[in-house]
Amino acid sequence: MTESPRIFAKQYLMTAGPTPLPPAVSQAMAEPVIYHRSPAFIEIYARVLENLRTVFRTRNDVLCFAASGTGAMDSAVANLVAPGDQAVVASCGKFGERWRDVCEAYGADTIDLEFEWGDPIDHERVDAALADAPAPVRAVFATQCETSTGVVNDVRALSEVARRHDTVLCVDAVSGLGAIDLPQDEWGVDVVVSGSQKSLMCPPGLAFVSASERALAQAADRPGRRHYFDWELTAAGQRQDPPNSAFTPAVTLFRAIDIALEQIIAEGLEQVFARHALLARAARAGIESLGLERFGPDDESANVVTVAAMPDEIEGAQVPKLMRDRYGVTVAGGQGRLKGRIVRIAHCGYYGAFDIVAALTALEMSLRDLGVEVEPGAGAGGAQRVFAEAGVAPEPVG
Amino acid sequence: MTESPRIFAKQYLMTAGPTPLPPAVSQAMAEPVIYHRSPAFIEIYARVLENLRTVFRTRNDVLCFAASGTGAMDSAVANLVAPGDQAVVASCGKFGERWRDVCEAYGADTIDLEFEWGDPIDHERVDAALADAPAPVRAVFATQCETSTGVVNDVRALSEVARRHDTVLCVDAVSGLGAIDLPQDEWGVDVVVSGSQKSLMCPPGLAFVSASERALAQAADRPGRRHYFDWELTAAGQRQDPPNSAFTPAVTLFRAIDIALEQIIAEGLEQVFARHALLARAARAGIESLGLERFGPDDESANVVTVAAMPDEIEGAQVPKLMRDRYGVTVAGGQGRLKGRIVRIAHCGYYGAFDIVAALTALEMSLRDLGVEVEPGAGAGGAQRVFAEAGVAPEPVG
Repeated sequence: MTESPRIFAKQYLMTAGPTPLPPAVSQAMAEPVIYHRSPAFIEIYARVLENLRTVFRTRNDVLCFAASGTGAMDSAVANLVAPGDQAVVASCGKFGERWRDVCEAYGADTIDLEFEWGDPIDHERVDAALADAPAPVRAVFATQCETSTGVVNDVRALSEVARRHDTVLCVDAVSGLGAIDLPQDEWGVDVVVSGSQKSLMCPPGLAFVSASERALAQAADRPGRRHYFDWELTAAGQRQDPPNSAFTPAVTLFRAIDIALEQIIAEGLEQVFARHALLARAARAGIESLGLERFGPDDESANVVTVAAMPDEIEGAQVPKLMRDRYGVTVAGGQGRLKGRIVRIAHCGYYGAFDIVAALTALEMSLRDLGVEVEPGAGAGGAQRVFAEAGVAPEPVG
Repeated sequence: MTESPRIFAKQYLMTAGPTPLPPAVSQAMAEPVIYHRSPAFIEIYARVLENLRTVFRTRNDVLCFAASGTGAMDSAVANLVAPGDQAVVASCGKFGERWRDVCEAYGADTIDLEFEWGDPIDHERVDAALADAPAPVRAVFATQCETSTGVVNDVRALSEVARRHDTVLCVDAVSGLGAIDLPQDEWGVDVVVSGSQKSLMCPPGLAFVSASERALAQAADRPGRRHYFDWELTAAGQRQDPPNSAFTPAVTLFRAIDIALEQIIAEGLEQVFARHALLARAARAGIESLGLERFGPDDESANVVTVAAMPDEIEGAQVPKLMRDRYGVTVAGGQGRLKGRIVRIAHCGYYGAFDIVAALTALEMSLRDLGVEVEPGAGAGGAQRVFAEAGVAPEPVG
């Protein structure tokens, strides 16, 4: 028996972080290393700091750390919450629970509001918790896109609640910033944290914190428990003219984010958000065309990662495994209590129409391998109809 | 007038971090991003964890963080020292002082032993301070190579002192690990921290902590004040089979360090140390041949960065500026109280003989531009004589 032609050797990364990179971003990292105090780096650094403001939709200094996104979350708790301070964590999935873990590590007196995995945060319950809190709440921690379930929370409503109670809202936007709109200043969100490796089209290793003057003042009132992640120290360096990093920055990753931010800004933020929304709509349609249930709320907000519920009759954990090992398409399955129950197809960052088609087709083939009856092409067809209805295809030729 | 031929456009990075990269390391970062839970990444991750042990000369788990080297230092203090704990900081330059800053940030009761910039730490004074400390000292913080002055401290002697007083020694080996020997387990050093961007031939963005079981136990006794940098959390992930990172690792930097560690191990640690020693000897000889004073102790230990004192009659800060702007050779000047007084030529990491020749020649030309009388070729000649005496040149041809 001859070996099959290797048509599935080519690899597709469809996870919500890390995400694939535009070629120019990858290539920038192969450039020679430059000294972080040299004019060549300072030019990149200054441009990145300015472009981050545009993408975060803020006039804050967007503080940059060499860290995973969790490092930025850690910094938020370390800076905003002194031991014994009252804090509220509103969570609806694994990443929301991380806020609780960090708050506990730092000795906060945490009011833990848990919502069902797959449901969004109910801002009215947050409102009630703030009204009933036994001590002044110093910060509310929540998640924009809960990547473990695909749910996108109503950050604007949460921000209104926090401001009504005169407390700081701190939003983990690690996966969604740059995919769905979060006009920080317009909505009055005090702190937005994010990371390089998801919608911002870079490798992991840079973490960002956009903190308002009010949040910075609260941090200054709560010294200690940090040096590397101290906001004041990093802000002081970034505010110098020219900007001067407090510690050695990850210079190759700065080269990467420089290219990525320029690409995002050249495409235009509105266009970027519209692209994500349309890819998500196509992914949702494809999943329904495959005969699968979608996991999560039935609305149009979940534009970062599309989540399919696995049929009860198959072993759900087999699906992402088959997609990767047989077909070269890496998607994420479920985490924690959702293990084996869902498949998550990401489309945050450098994704286009045919990435969705490829992911849906690999999903379809894997389901068929497991005995699920699906008409070949159903998923791709569902997505294609969305593209056609959106009128985004070029004019007919000839 | 015609423009000069651009013979100085080519750039040479001669700073002690970031340092230049082997081409294969640079290229690895341009490879497609891989998912951190995929078999392809886990293979790299496991190999890096094992190779780090070889290079750290330890059987400890070498904990990996996405961070600058300062992040690893921060983690050491956060994990080892509870607020109010007695700590000793022994410093002889800018990076040593950083230990003091971190200890203060975390509320340690710090005994601050400062030594002259340019002198090494006197371990007898550390011994006396430990004997006289009013409370049990929980940790001693010191620096292997003090990059701001080039001084390399006697870590072995410091370790003996710390063990005599039954306390944990924590060494910042960010610049020197992989350039000069630090047999951690043999010397009984409890904690060694390092970074990717110096002798380990990678870009900045990865930080490492090799902590002994004793240090990990002390950390477990002092919970709180960290989540991202919690040693137990990261150790627990790395100890799984296969290893599983607590947070999204900086996957492109892991690809880079994987290649770099394989290169270091293939060259052989003893050979790597010998190369650094010989390059340093050549740099010292070249500086003396130029008629400059060397800064720092008159011994053979300073093998990470070679420091030249600038003559009083010139404005010393002009020298690194001319070297970079006229000749394309980026070296570091002095920091803090040494500003304008020294020039530092690094040779830690991916450096060879002609890098030293280039740096010495650019230094010589810049000195001549400032009116210092030097015979052209004096520096290069001094270095070349060292290479010849070492018998490292290939056999004569023909």
